Amino acid sequence: MKSLNRLISAFRRLPGVGPKQAERFSSYFLKASEAEANELCTALQNLKKSVKLCSNCLNYCENDLCHICKDEARDRTSICIVEKPKDIELIERTKIYNGLYHVLHGTISPVSAKEIGHHKIKQLAGRVDASDPKILEIILATNPDTEGENTALYIADVLKGSVENISRLGYGMPLGADIEYTDELTLSYALKGRTKV
Amino acid sequence: MKSLNRLISAFRRLPGVGPKQAERFSSYFLKASEAEANELCTALQNLKKSVKLCSNCLNYCENDLCHICKDEARDRTSICIVEKPKDIELIERTKIYNGLYHVLHGTISPVSAKEIGHHKIKQLAGRVDASDPKILEIILATNPDTEGENTALYIADVLKGSVENISRLGYGMPLGADIEYTDELTLSYALKGRTKV
Repeated sequence: MKSLNRLISAFRRLPGVGPKQAERFSSYFLKASEAEANELCTALQNLKKSVKLCSNCLNYCENDLCHICKDEARDRTSICIVEKPKDIELIERTKIYNGLYHVLHGTISPVSAKEIGHHKIKQLAGRVDASDPKILEIILATNPDTEGENTALYIADVLKGSVENISRLGYGMPLGADIEYTDELTLSYALKGRTKV
Repeated sequence: MKSLNRLISAFRRLPGVGPKQAERFSSYFLKASEAEANELCTALQNLKKSVKLCSNCLNYCENDLCHICKDEARDRTSICIVEKPKDIELIERTKIYNGLYHVLHGTISPVSAKEIGHHKIKQLAGRVDASDPKILEIILATNPDTEGENTALYIADVLKGSVENISRLGYGMPLGADIEYTDELTLSYALKGRTKV
């Protein structure tokens, strides 16, 4: 049936969905009520319609400003720079950071498919310069891989005139790791970054 | 975000989708183009709009008759009775049956959630009686479990006046099975159903 095959192809585009699972989802809707099919559609169209980027930090949000930028209790002198909106959630869960964020939506890297334009860095620099109160701290929380590293170094270079305190996430052994199974690079960072007890 | 949570709940209703996967699907649509979201919606609504039940055998189809009932080359004196449309596909793959089908969309069983009304059996009996050419063979291909068994016996009872040749799928050891790990019931059926070599 043509209409079933079309739905199967649509589901196959979802991340991690193979032919069997796409068929299972589609068959489910053969049986499901029309109301249920409509609920998925409405939710989907609603998402595409109402989710925008925060005008300050580029996080996803439903209004002009995201809930973090709107929060009066946050420290407005500190910006943590992340690659994607999802990273904010994970940093928020640690409950030890109370500043603002800035989402790059990618990295600067000539070899990466996620490459972002330099205008995004200019946008960040503009935000830092225009900020009131003055930004006192930048935390570079890009991933500890080549692209993330390059991006962090580049941003540090751009911002070093405007912000005094620029830091990078600490490297080292993850908690619960075993030295035997830790790669040399991580171990060398853990050695360099050793702390007094 | 409300609209994201609503989409997550909609995806969670799909069979076998847990909270993590529903979130992954939803986040995918945050990034995906609006065209892609619309394609899924259109495919879904199209399916609900265009898929009907075949007026002859109750299989899913997009027209009045399904492709099997329409096929002039099929043997119109034989009906294979199945519980659900998916079963037809699997029987078709064996390529050894060339008759028609009838889909019950459930079983008759007082303990099953999939219980069907007796009017469905009357509908089947009506089809058998009205058929031209006369139905010469009925194959009961319900599942080999309590509900399927009850349903098969009941249908055999209803139709035994109208059709001479009523049979049930053969029971026994599945190919590739190991006697050591076969349950007693299956083994007892395999013994009763032994064939000469």
